[in-house]
Amino acid sequence: MPSHMTIRNAATELGAGTMTSTKLTESVLERINDPAGEGLKVYVRRNDQRARQLAEASDRVQAAGHRRSLLEGLPISVKDLFDISGETTLAGSVALKDRAPAATDSPVVRRLIAAGAVITGTTNMSEFAFSGLGLNPHYGTPRNPYEREKGRVPGGSSSGAAISVTDGMAVAAIGTDTGGSIRIPSALCGLTGFKPTARRVSAEGVVPLSTTLDSIGPLARSVSCCAVVDAVLTGDDAPLPTALPIRGLRLGVVRTVVQDDMDTPVAKSFDRALSLLSAAGAVITEIDIPEFAELSQIYARTGFVAAEAFHWHQDLIAEKGHLYDHRVRARIERGREISSALYIEALHTRRSWQERVGERVAGFDAIVMPTVPIIAPEIAPLEADDAAFFAANALVLRNPTMINFLDGCALSLPCHTPGEAPVGLMLAGTAMQDRHILRVGLAVEEVLSSI
Amino acid sequence: MPSHMTIRNAATELGAGTMTSTKLTESVLERINDPAGEGLKVYVRRNDQRARQLAEASDRVQAAGHRRSLLEGLPISVKDLFDISGETTLAGSVALKDRAPAATDSPVVRRLIAAGAVITGTTNMSEFAFSGLGLNPHYGTPRNPYEREKGRVPGGSSSGAAISVTDGMAVAAIGTDTGGSIRIPSALCGLTGFKPTARRVSAEGVVPLSTTLDSIGPLARSVSCCAVVDAVLTGDDAPLPTALPIRGLRLGVVRTVVQDDMDTPVAKSFDRALSLLSAAGAVITEIDIPEFAELSQIYARTGFVAAEAFHWHQDLIAEKGHLYDHRVRARIERGREISSALYIEALHTRRSWQERVGERVAGFDAIVMPTVPIIAPEIAPLEADDAAFFAANALVLRNPTMINFLDGCALSLPCHTPGEAPVGLMLAGTAMQDRHILRVGLAVEEVLSSI
Repeated sequence: MPSHMTIRNAATELGAGTMTSTKLTESVLERINDPAGEGLKVYVRRNDQRARQLAEASDRVQAAGHRRSLLEGLPISVKDLFDISGETTLAGSVALKDRAPAATDSPVVRRLIAAGAVITGTTNMSEFAFSGLGLNPHYGTPRNPYEREKGRVPGGSSSGAAISVTDGMAVAAIGTDTGGSIRIPSALCGLTGFKPTARRVSAEGVVPLSTTLDSIGPLARSVSCCAVVDAVLTGDDAPLPTALPIRGLRLGVVRTVVQDDMDTPVAKSFDRALSLLSAAGAVITEIDIPEFAELSQIYARTGFVAAEAFHWHQDLIAEKGHLYDHRVRARIERGREISSALYIEALHTRRSWQERVGERVAGFDAIVMPTVPIIAPEIAPLEADDAAFFAANALVLRNPTMINFLDGCALSLPCHTPGEAPVGLMLAGTAMQDRHILRVGLAVEEVLSSI
Repeated sequence: MPSHMTIRNAATELGAGTMTSTKLTESVLERINDPAGEGLKVYVRRNDQRARQLAEASDRVQAAGHRRSLLEGLPISVKDLFDISGETTLAGSVALKDRAPAATDSPVVRRLIAAGAVITGTTNMSEFAFSGLGLNPHYGTPRNPYEREKGRVPGGSSSGAAISVTDGMAVAAIGTDTGGSIRIPSALCGLTGFKPTARRVSAEGVVPLSTTLDSIGPLARSVSCCAVVDAVLTGDDAPLPTALPIRGLRLGVVRTVVQDDMDTPVAKSFDRALSLLSAAGAVITEIDIPEFAELSQIYARTGFVAAEAFHWHQDLIAEKGHLYDHRVRARIERGREISSALYIEALHTRRSWQERVGERVAGFDAIVMPTVPIIAPEIAPLEADDAAFFAANALVLRNPTMINFLDGCALSLPCHTPGEAPVGLMLAGTAMQDRHILRVGLAVEEVLSSI
């Protein structure tokens, strides 16, 4: 399978009969199982037999003249925290290995299969989704395609998800995003990622990190790919979104915090993207969102995510804490000390923060920022040094987290030229503006395609 | 004002010109200020001048041919935790006396005034609404009208609200209900009380107890009175609900827990009511709701209400904890020790509990139980003995609390004969079934009126 294949390209080939789902799936499995590639670090659980059966089933459905969705017959990977009937969900950890196999498919997996997708397997991730760089000491860390020999991080927590797409081991990947876990690896690997409004996709049968913030969405090759997957995950039968006119599109470029500490290549790509959008007729306005400067303090004070994570993990840590990545465990353990009063304060603070930010951004079609202020750092120094790890981790999570706390939705689009370090441009909106953000994304993508 | 006056009676008299709002208000103020009555223990904050001005304004509006609602010109009391512009909200405490006056009316007060109501003042309550008997060591405890000379509790926390209506000091009262604070005093004092689904009435400008459970509704003389007030508080312009046919009405009489430890007069009145309803054609089915047997354990384990109360109270307790009723403070202080993990567990437990109870009651027009299993106990022994207080408090809160945890709605209707100790019959439904429960209540009230 060509690694740049979009869902539409693949669907067209299948529709024209120049390709079958079985052949496509075999080519994907070959790549996955090639020991010279990243496949064995990308996929934590594989079930080639299941993939082949789903592919054969799809070919029969297509032979009978049906197409259940645009995903019909396409290899799709799912992050290692979605329940798949008969398998033990691991969430990138070794602490869950003794767990009973899932009795039923999670709704996300059920919907994908009902839509005709071929589940290729479950992808590696930061353990329990609780970090943004994608390092995993248990299953290895798949390498970023950019300067692969240097061994750069893929970004996380949906690390394997990203590499499954960049390396042609899936047409699209399903990830989760609690503080950037879809958008960070998308940005660092040159993919398009979509974090929907959390409530739109069922989180049943998914190992939670923060039940308040967890969102489920795609990492793929284009905005259109993301829209197709999103429609399947949400069960939305409406016609797929179309691009808004770029002329007059009101984009609010956020100045506060999110442009601090930018790497030069990020600043260069980001500024070039804004120039192109402006030249194409978009109305670019720089805006301050002072609330963005409050968020790190709110998180530091209330340990919001840690409190929710600890609630889920407390029994497992008591029994198997020694099996955890010590960095992930340290982050979760913070939740042990969070009082209910502090947690309730966080919920109240969040509501007021959301209202204030909502007022500021209401006049824009989307707000814009660099998804991640740095390019993908190398794995080895981060593995070696806790302080370097936590500093880089905080930096990559910083911008995406704003949108999780907002309960909003966001796309990350690539905005670098081929050969350059991948850089992501984030387009974000408030809760339930998902369709509008996808329409903005289609317009912006069209402009950026000239880079 | 006759103490049994309903909103419709009063509105009819005003409409016919046989009464003016000014005269009605004067008669009410006279009662309130009569030192031989309960008035000075019923009203914590009075503003007779404001009441007279609102009454005069209403008479002018009526003279001009308008009636803003069925509450036009009627004296209505509000519990002492609603903000009224220019006054300091006290919540039955002395710890808030130094607080700045409210800058604006709470939405509830604003809607009442816009509807033409004459606010008589704010009514006494269990301090910070955190107890079900109505004892208040700061402002005194108004006595139940039943065997008044014996000095029985009014029930709480909306204690003054109930006595403002029983004693003809308001046509209806606005209370709040977090675990029964509208329904308990209604039951113990022979009134009709309505606890709506919490989200239906704005809690802005209201001193919170549990932001998750707090509900705002009326204590009055009839179901129809409750429906009129509810429409004003929610801004619902739909026609007022009408009675469902009693024949075939499916009533689920709950056996689990809620009929334990019943006083003889309560059992007698409750059984008689069920017999009358059955004879009138209602289909009475006894049902078990095993989840009701879990709730006391859930509350004991997670300190759900205490956790939310402590979040609000922590700073005030640090500064002025010595001014609190020691029993209320002890209940709030429990929240200090509740971890975020335990609080989050309570939120998850609640969701699953609600779903299970919802399934069990889905086939009924309403579920039925005694509002409170005992008749109003005497004040003096409870004031004297903490253990007796906490035991009685737990018992009166036990049944109503089920519906708060359910996020449901409920009426309490009187079901005793005149002269007997007041007993309440509770009709309850799940979230947002408010209109249906009011329609059931109108039908049941019609049958019980023959007692």
